Amino acid sequence: MSQTNAYAAFAADKPLAPFSVERRQPRPDDVAIEILYCGVCHSDLHFARNDWGMTRYPLVPGHEIVGRVTAVGDEVSQHQVGDIVGVGCMVDSCRHCQPCEDGNEQYCLNGFTMTYGSDDRHDGSLTQGGYADQIVVSEHFVLRMPEGIDLASAAPILCAGITTYSPLKHYGVKPGHKVGVIGMGGLGHMGVKLAKALGAEVTVFTRSEAKVEEARRHGAHHVVVSTDEEQMAAVAETYDFMLDTVPVQHDLNPYLAALKYDGTHILVGLLDPIEPAVQGANLVFKRRVLAGSLIGGIEETQELLDFCAEHDIRCDIETVNIQDINTAFERMEKGDVRYRFVIDMASLKE
Amino acid sequence: MSQTNAYAAFAADKPLAPFSVERRQPRPDDVAIEILYCGVCHSDLHFARNDWGMTRYPLVPGHEIVGRVTAVGDEVSQHQVGDIVGVGCMVDSCRHCQPCEDGNEQYCLNGFTMTYGSDDRHDGSLTQGGYADQIVVSEHFVLRMPEGIDLASAAPILCAGITTYSPLKHYGVKPGHKVGVIGMGGLGHMGVKLAKALGAEVTVFTRSEAKVEEARRHGAHHVVVSTDEEQMAAVAETYDFMLDTVPVQHDLNPYLAALKYDGTHILVGLLDPIEPAVQGANLVFKRRVLAGSLIGGIEETQELLDFCAEHDIRCDIETVNIQDINTAFERMEKGDVRYRFVIDMASLKE
Repeated sequence: MSQTNAYAAFAADKPLAPFSVERRQPRPDDVAIEILYCGVCHSDLHFARNDWGMTRYPLVPGHEIVGRVTAVGDEVSQHQVGDIVGVGCMVDSCRHCQPCEDGNEQYCLNGFTMTYGSDDRHDGSLTQGGYADQIVVSEHFVLRMPEGIDLASAAPILCAGITTYSPLKHYGVKPGHKVGVIGMGGLGHMGVKLAKALGAEVTVFTRSEAKVEEARRHGAHHVVVSTDEEQMAAVAETYDFMLDTVPVQHDLNPYLAALKYDGTHILVGLLDPIEPAVQGANLVFKRRVLAGSLIGGIEETQELLDFCAEHDIRCDIETVNIQDINTAFERMEKGDVRYRFVIDMASLKE
Repeated sequence: MSQTNAYAAFAADKPLAPFSVERRQPRPDDVAIEILYCGVCHSDLHFARNDWGMTRYPLVPGHEIVGRVTAVGDEVSQHQVGDIVGVGCMVDSCRHCQPCEDGNEQYCLNGFTMTYGSDDRHDGSLTQGGYADQIVVSEHFVLRMPEGIDLASAAPILCAGITTYSPLKHYGVKPGHKVGVIGMGGLGHMGVKLAKALGAEVTVFTRSEAKVEEARRHGAHHVVVSTDEEQMAAVAETYDFMLDTVPVQHDLNPYLAALKYDGTHILVGLLDPIEPAVQGANLVFKRRVLAGSLIGGIEETQELLDFCAEHDIRCDIETVNIQDINTAFERMEKGDVRYRFVIDMASLKE
């Protein structure tokens, strides 16, 4: 065991504060990593505040981790000391069920091990995330950061990026397709860039007239203000896919109506009951599909990192020091971030 | 024009009664048909009672029509006088939009012409259905009844059959797949037979213990009583597909939970708002899909008729005389039919 500096949540209603977290000695298949950057995902906030009722304190959040390898176990073959690597939302899974064998560890039938807040499959210890100096992770769950990629802006690719890329790939988005992206936050702005890089014609749906210019800056070919009924009526039966990144309840029916026959509406953010109710007729009469998707598999995440390096796709970020994490959380709650905070972990050494 | 005997609804709250309906002289691409049998679909009842607020009276229902060709227009090449043919839910469509070109006339962007209750695309007259002696239909929408098929029990294939077959084919159901069929009425019992004939392992979900034996008689490999929580828990994450034939609101969440990761829940009967609300997490966490499907295309319907003849798949029917149609409607409302009434149109000549 070794102790490493970190920031942890100690209770739902208390700010994050310095904490010394134990990291295991690397097992034979483990990679020890010095963390350079860690993105700040909305899930971090939910977990810190125990919004999902499953948090055990103290909790170190963070699952968009970029760092440098400092040690490797005897059996590690994919990574070497000095390599720049990444760790996303998962640090383990059962590795033998059908989804794991399919490379979809995120759907592991026995439940994947979350980067923080899960029980380690071997020693039962509570996993602790990337708001820390160091982390130790099994090599299968460690990604290779492509040469030349900007490390800070690449960190959110490991969650926000893969969450939007995975369904675009799964459903085969390609040139000729028309893709709508609903919501333009951390996930949405990456969805725009990725769908465009895959060759699709991209339309951003936003409630805010103020975001129109920004959406175009991210590469959107078109922008529809979703509160404008005339604009919505004009795009009826237009899209092959809707990538719906909105994490709060909203009416899906106007977006379903904007899908072509055989079109697919993909939820990546909404875990709550789908209310207002979806009209059955909106699916049946046009053979439309309402689908969900969760992050992405490890191999797919590696593919995405390489894809982003090749196409120079970056997450728009604001770098913060770890000492400012509570302010960052507060700003996130108000939607005051474009589009992702990334912690420069050098600040933890100060 | 010629007059033909029929039964029509004259008002939402009046019983069906004899009516003389005009049939057009065959156009060059038309086939004139003497109707031998006509199935009684629940939609007929909804239309007769104006449940969907779009009925124009008098209305002759009926869209599961089997008959004999009595005349053909000059340009007709697919059918000859004396042929035994079928007509389903559609008698025309725009024929040039993408869905029409794909052979999916049921999703025609300009709206397909319903067998009854639509405006004819050429003369604007109100289409009238199969509770009648004769009908005149454009040859593209006339199906060939395979030799040797039992005509009365084949009539419902044209609606109940194709409605369940089309999504099973679209989603590629094949040997090795586990398919759940929810509800065991006219659609459900055909779904069981068709999914089984496609090689799937079929489980019927029914609320009624009394239907277990019957489900097995239709060929179901397994039966789950859906009101039994223990039985439902035992089949969690088991199925590749759910074919949901229930036409009234019901909670989809327990069935979604019974789908594997990547599993698909297909609605073919529910047009109302989906309440209780679907849990977003039930889709997102397992990449599950909620889909809708509407009847099927003409080419696909022909394929199904041939498939049913080959596999000796019949709809379970009760033959009635046209004079008993109002009693049949009342019994349908009470669910007292196994599984489809078919009118022997010879009775109309009495």
